[in-house]
Amino acid sequence: MPEQSTEPRPTLEAVAARAGVSRATASRVVNGGEGVREPLVERVRRAVDELGYVPNQAARSLVTRRHDAVAVVIAEPETRVFADPFFALQLRGISKELTAHDSQLVLLLTEGRDDHARVARYLAGGHVDGALVFSLHLDDPLPGLINGVPTVYGGRPGWSGGSRGAVYVDCDNRGGAREAVRYLVGLGRRRIAHITGALDQTSAVDRLDGFRDVMVDADPALIVESDFTLGGGERAMRELLDRCPDLDAVFAANDLTAAGALRVLRERGRRVPEEVAVIGFDDMLPVTEQADPPLTTVRQDIEEMGRLMARLLLRGLDRTVSAAAAASASGSSAPTGGAGEGLVGVPPSSVVLPTTLVLRASA
Amino acid sequence: MPEQSTEPRPTLEAVAARAGVSRATASRVVNGGEGVREPLVERVRRAVDELGYVPNQAARSLVTRRHDAVAVVIAEPETRVFADPFFALQLRGISKELTAHDSQLVLLLTEGRDDHARVARYLAGGHVDGALVFSLHLDDPLPGLINGVPTVYGGRPGWSGGSRGAVYVDCDNRGGAREAVRYLVGLGRRRIAHITGALDQTSAVDRLDGFRDVMVDADPALIVESDFTLGGGERAMRELLDRCPDLDAVFAANDLTAAGALRVLRERGRRVPEEVAVIGFDDMLPVTEQADPPLTTVRQDIEEMGRLMARLLLRGLDRTVSAAAAASASGSSAPTGGAGEGLVGVPPSSVVLPTTLVLRASA
Repeated sequence: MPEQSTEPRPTLEAVAARAGVSRATASRVVNGGEGVREPLVERVRRAVDELGYVPNQAARSLVTRRHDAVAVVIAEPETRVFADPFFALQLRGISKELTAHDSQLVLLLTEGRDDHARVARYLAGGHVDGALVFSLHLDDPLPGLINGVPTVYGGRPGWSGGSRGAVYVDCDNRGGAREAVRYLVGLGRRRIAHITGALDQTSAVDRLDGFRDVMVDADPALIVESDFTLGGGERAMRELLDRCPDLDAVFAANDLTAAGALRVLRERGRRVPEEVAVIGFDDMLPVTEQADPPLTTVRQDIEEMGRLMARLLLRGLDRTVSAAAAASASGSSAPTGGAGEGLVGVPPSSVVLPTTLVLRASA
Repeated sequence: MPEQSTEPRPTLEAVAARAGVSRATASRVVNGGEGVREPLVERVRRAVDELGYVPNQAARSLVTRRHDAVAVVIAEPETRVFADPFFALQLRGISKELTAHDSQLVLLLTEGRDDHARVARYLAGGHVDGALVFSLHLDDPLPGLINGVPTVYGGRPGWSGGSRGAVYVDCDNRGGAREAVRYLVGLGRRRIAHITGALDQTSAVDRLDGFRDVMVDADPALIVESDFTLGGGERAMRELLDRCPDLDAVFAANDLTAAGALRVLRERGRRVPEEVAVIGFDDMLPVTEQADPPLTTVRQDIEEMGRLMARLLLRGLDRTVSAAAAASASGSSAPTGGAGEGLVGVPPSSVVLPTTLVLRASA
């Protein structure tokens, strides 16, 4: 760091002086503006190269309103972000797509909900072009705080009054759950239990709805609320076995929960699938394949969902820029709203991907 | 997103109008400037609250030069960031410390080295107050590109000419390696092998040096270059057993590599520690305790290293602000360099933490 204070970054003035042009001309070239003669453009570019000048993005973004950076917010404490492979997979898809468009992935980590106001400040503060937000819980204030920041959600947002035109990428949680439970019924199972996910998330609510679509008169004792974690799955399975020792199948809201359930069933000496069949959700590969026995599950393409989220956001941003350019060319203002505020023109649509039942040994 | 374009964010003009003051006065209040009478300050603050106004950080940061955000760059592809628990632990320490100071952790992920120019653009672009950079490899251009951005390194940077006054947090890699190898010698082992880490990182070079400090005339066939990964450890162990079937101990450059070596030793029917003693480095808890047999290793406090990196950076930034304030109060310019460029005043020092040999069953 002492090194850095003795080598100050070259200024725009230095670039202008070296190129022999005015500061205004140098600024126009650096910010990609028009109306500078080609020989002057050349001289400024050479000076930029020679001095290693890096434009101050804060100043430049006031002009261009683009940062070539997209924020990702996972509305969970950072400890869960690194413990649950679901997030790594989704980030992999996002990272590939953003990199292909030379846009920087900016992951905003938090210790928990209390930090979301700070995250919103960063998002609204002009450091990124938009945001990808996932694992949102129902009462999270974040969506309200980032109104005005182009956003694509991972999973349908669950705020009251529906998704209010928000753009999201999701899988068919309800349909996937229905398929899993119908399969268990087809195996002849009658006492089918459900371990839910965190019910303040729409994915968990939708999977519970899918379970109920098939098990219309389900014994309420066969449904236990849980939280999408391995430990939660263990606790829920113990509770289920104590309450309903005669259960013959379990549909768990995700693979981690199912892995916890399998562990407890083994502890209690219940054979899987002979005595109790188990189905998970997600098809998170190391978890499902290393489970004992390997886990039958509802597959969703998590990496592809991440990629689609990034693609929808970038497409929306491009549309904003085109609309602004068209408006400026025709001398009128942008069709609706300010060009840099939110998205204008035809909005991209949300996408709901299908799921597949993957049969392994547990059911 | 269509929602967002119909509800544009309130402007500073709207705040000024509602408060009944000029735009300049509203701007001074919002940007924390002095010289506005208290009743006017109150009126502007009330208007800000009522309208839900969020200042444009890009504009504001031109004035305050603080973003209350710190970037973290792990100079590895994002797939490794999520596969190696070392990074999660270091991020945990960083996250705790930054949150305690209400500073946002901004993790910049990449697909690999090719993206580092883009990362540097973001860092130099005025979106963060400074950067924490770790897992740097020798020929990475990143440090040169972010000259001017206050930076603390995790692990001693290895560029030629020494660390050139860079501030870093590291553990005593060479001393820790020496202790491990001396312990193996003390057990009566004579054919001690070393599986190195990635030798374009100083941590790997230092651990190799520590090995050589003790095994001064080591048979070169007993040293195999590897890369800090589990798969790398497996490959290296196979090569070692083929070359030197009489080896009786292995010092591996980290725990993942040691876990890979243990797997191959078991495959080949070598009993650990009776026939081959194994020692790792890091003490990464799930890895060392779940190893078969549990792994003897050189412990470094990874989470504490993360915390210290964040603390050193924040302390340096505070010092910059104080120096600028003092200079401004006395009517002179800041002591050295520009106040917002790099750090001024007495620089924080690098920190090298001690290591401890933790004895389990493998040696």
